[in-house]
Amino acid sequence: MISQPLSKLSVIPLGGTGEIGKNLLVFEYEDSIVLIDGGVKFPDEELLGIDLVIPDITYLEKNRERIKALFITHGHEDHIGGLPFILPKLNIPIYGTKLALGLVKAKFQERTPYPESLMHVLEPGVPILAGAFEVEAFRVTHSIPDAVGYSLLTPVGRVVYTGDFKVDYTPIDNQHMELGKLAAWGEEGILALLCDATNAERSGVTWSEMAVGKALREWFERAEGKIIMATFASNVHRLQQAIDAATDIGRKVCVVGRSMENVVRTATELGYLKLPNENTLVASSEVGTMPPEKLLVLTTGSQGEPLAALTRMATRSHRQINVQAGDMVIIAATPIPGNEKLVGKTINHLYQIGAEVVTKEMGQVHVSGHANQEEIKLVIRLARPRFLIPHHGEIRHQAGFRKIGHSLGYSDQDIALTQLGSRVELSPDQMKFGERVEAGSIYIDGLGVGDVGHLVLKDRQQLGQDGVVVVVAALSKTKPYRVMSGPDIISRGFTFMKEADILVEGAKKEVLNSIEVQIRKDQMEWGILKANIRENLSKYLWDKTRRRPMIMPVLLDY
Amino acid sequence: MISQPLSKLSVIPLGGTGEIGKNLLVFEYEDSIVLIDGGVKFPDEELLGIDLVIPDITYLEKNRERIKALFITHGHEDHIGGLPFILPKLNIPIYGTKLALGLVKAKFQERTPYPESLMHVLEPGVPILAGAFEVEAFRVTHSIPDAVGYSLLTPVGRVVYTGDFKVDYTPIDNQHMELGKLAAWGEEGILALLCDATNAERSGVTWSEMAVGKALREWFERAEGKIIMATFASNVHRLQQAIDAATDIGRKVCVVGRSMENVVRTATELGYLKLPNENTLVASSEVGTMPPEKLLVLTTGSQGEPLAALTRMATRSHRQINVQAGDMVIIAATPIPGNEKLVGKTINHLYQIGAEVVTKEMGQVHVSGHANQEEIKLVIRLARPRFLIPHHGEIRHQAGFRKIGHSLGYSDQDIALTQLGSRVELSPDQMKFGERVEAGSIYIDGLGVGDVGHLVLKDRQQLGQDGVVVVVAALSKTKPYRVMSGPDIISRGFTFMKEADILVEGAKKEVLNSIEVQIRKDQMEWGILKANIRENLSKYLWDKTRRRPMIMPVLLDY
Repeated sequence: MISQPLSKLSVIPLGGTGEIGKNLLVFEYEDSIVLIDGGVKFPDEELLGIDLVIPDITYLEKNRERIKALFITHGHEDHIGGLPFILPKLNIPIYGTKLALGLVKAKFQERTPYPESLMHVLEPGVPILAGAFEVEAFRVTHSIPDAVGYSLLTPVGRVVYTGDFKVDYTPIDNQHMELGKLAAWGEEGILALLCDATNAERSGVTWSEMAVGKALREWFERAEGKIIMATFASNVHRLQQAIDAATDIGRKVCVVGRSMENVVRTATELGYLKLPNENTLVASSEVGTMPPEKLLVLTTGSQGEPLAALTRMATRSHRQINVQAGDMVIIAATPIPGNEKLVGKTINHLYQIGAEVVTKEMGQVHVSGHANQEEIKLVIRLARPRFLIPHHGEIRHQAGFRKIGHSLGYSDQDIALTQLGSRVELSPDQMKFGERVEAGSIYIDGLGVGDVGHLVLKDRQQLGQDGVVVVVAALSKTKPYRVMSGPDIISRGFTFMKEADILVEGAKKEVLNSIEVQIRKDQMEWGILKANIRENLSKYLWDKTRRRPMIMPVLLDY
Repeated sequence: MISQPLSKLSVIPLGGTGEIGKNLLVFEYEDSIVLIDGGVKFPDEELLGIDLVIPDITYLEKNRERIKALFITHGHEDHIGGLPFILPKLNIPIYGTKLALGLVKAKFQERTPYPESLMHVLEPGVPILAGAFEVEAFRVTHSIPDAVGYSLLTPVGRVVYTGDFKVDYTPIDNQHMELGKLAAWGEEGILALLCDATNAERSGVTWSEMAVGKALREWFERAEGKIIMATFASNVHRLQQAIDAATDIGRKVCVVGRSMENVVRTATELGYLKLPNENTLVASSEVGTMPPEKLLVLTTGSQGEPLAALTRMATRSHRQINVQAGDMVIIAATPIPGNEKLVGKTINHLYQIGAEVVTKEMGQVHVSGHANQEEIKLVIRLARPRFLIPHHGEIRHQAGFRKIGHSLGYSDQDIALTQLGSRVELSPDQMKFGERVEAGSIYIDGLGVGDVGHLVLKDRQQLGQDGVVVVVAALSKTKPYRVMSGPDIISRGFTFMKEADILVEGAKKEVLNSIEVQIRKDQMEWGILKANIRENLSKYLWDKTRRRPMIMPVLLDY
């Protein structure tokens, strides 16, 4: 028995709450901190030019010496994609199952290396001591093999985090979700359950991944030309089922797209993907010379990403693989919100070529990896936690999860809806919010990390909407003040200035006027002059065009 | 009987094919041209800063004197929104049903006026002679009242266009789709059917609008606070059902949002919307002082549009109406592809406030206005046309329509899949493609029409992604060539230059180098020098940052 503690356990989400993506959970008890996951998020449209978003880890950097370890739940980008940016700043040991860690290692090979000595493969059911925490992984089923949740036995009680999960009773690899373990801990008493809330708005249960295998076989039977199947690269079980089905009808498999190639390589090396024979795979350079009815192409691009392999094939800009009339293209995925239009474009291109297109709507070629309402209820009933904390979801999903909690008899006080940086303080009989910690988003753009702030993004939005107008003039900075050259007006992204002579002349007059007003005041303060030019010209252009280009006055000293 | 013709009938889609939006159909026989609809399309994301897209009507402007009239099928934006830009250039009579024409007139009042003498209300079943065409409207059911399709009796035979339609057997206004008329024409013989293909990928049938009324009543019963319902403003029947249901439980109605107010005004004036009593409506200024349980707010913003009323309410920036905890917000619409994320944001904001949010997924608060596969089959079977032309749909929808055609025994030769500007030539026993006409998209941005071309848009994309870097230097243009001032470097939307001193110094050196190379050649051609600066600096910045800002060299003559 653990004696009654004086301190509280803090649970702090630095990512993955109020949003889908960049998961990072912090567990803190006195001088012990343990982390779970370190993911990325893909930027919203308004984050122009941003490649990735990662959690702000200022809080962790300030408390670096207290952090004992980071544990990974599974190998999806939104759980491990931020590690190359996060880990080098913390230099802490990380733990994960074999596949998850394998994917992390592959990730580090692309960027800065991380010491092998700090990476540890972990076995579900084998507890690891990390400061005040005894951390134990338990198997869950999800859309990637080797996914786990974690139990953290702490001085104030046991806290369980499901990680991303669904309840799949017939997983392809026969690695069942350890519901029994959850139930046993439930009998002993769980203080709080952090639970995947992604699908909390969806009624019923999700289908088993096995249903996809069945549907794929049916579609494969009907295909006459090449079969091209796009799916999430990390869904190793779906790849396995597709490869098996193709082999059974005498088709060879070509793997295309960087992330697909990476996952197939790693998963095969680690034994998670089993190729039926030595000749299963063919190189993409061979595809052109093979009979189409002997081929399955596994490819990236299920989200219509402009540079992904399927998108290139659909627009006939892939170097090695062409989609032809009579080919069957299976999009075994659902568009992530925001990608619907891109996916639609790819589908239109494919139909244009004359391919048959199979989507989720036409047959069960995709199932979700997240638990629906009835699965969430099952897990809560088995775990019987004192308190509930939805994790991994937007506000709507948290609200949906709260409704589920209500339906099972939990009150609002028993359910903590967090925000980024919320500190949920747990004692054996109480859950309440403590003081928030610094949290938010760091934008990654090109090679830089964190040097693109909100001002730069605001500028990009204005530039992207209405373009830029540069005003150049050379002035004598000593008396008598005079305009020596210009003003000249150059624009990009605004309108065809060449076709707008009157507009340009009017703009020049406006600028000249601003300068002359300043000269008449007999005072040449360039800061003020620039501000006046900006204001007056902006007004003029708005009146004439109803647009607000960014105005950049450039004054040269003559 | 019409005697055997020598000429062919041409059907030319200038909008609405290969896309959803900006519908414009051209029918041409010898010196007679008749048009149907003139719509707008909302821009794709990559069309930065563009407000609207309309069809390119160069072909119509060139053949202006042959155009006899324009007919409207119904009052939706994608069928009438382009008329204020199109009609003033053509100056032709237009015909439409009372509501459709009323909405067109309201549109013209906002912009340039159009002569009343050219606008004619048309009655279904009363043929109008327009050159070589006898044009007759027939009633269809759709998500706006007073929608029609058209029969065009031509020298080569009868051609029928359904317009947008669904087969609603229980329309709210009891104005049934004239299926009998279609069947009678079918008995006489229809040469070609142009048919709404929007939902050709969806199996089964759509639900009647009546189902929405039933669902709304159920939700209204459960509401405790205000009810706020967002839907498409033009769906007058849905507004009618909501108003009736609210009145029955003692709630008054507040109409919010410009397009919603416009439609309610026009539809009430013309008798399409019937207010239960004189006190049904309340002003939005009164909402704050009324008990919430006595209110229904009908609002725009079902697509999450940033400036629409619901979005403002959800972000607490609406001047008069607040959403409060306990209010019920019904989103009686489905997101148009591309708007999913915006709608999701609004939903998250609403949950954050503590409102209950009802979407289509939770109850039948929205049904489609377009025919599903079984309805399309019904119409084809009744019309029994010799040839089929899907209209109003992307390539995927055209492909879906072709499959339906196949299933009814039509061959590929009997079905014409068109592109913008395709000329489908029809004779009594043949359909083939003639020479394409000029067609495409015109972008409307601010006050200008058509002055934003692809170059400007490409510039905006680059500016929006990576920002702009302006390089300024003053040079002596006469020998000896020298740098007199600068180079200076100013940027916006690129990175925080202040924090990147080394980058700026490196960039200046790069520019100076480009200039000196040019000086050493003893030749000062500014065009070449600018190109070199652009190229060298671009390379340098890409190496250092992996970004490609737009580079604008500004050289001044000293």
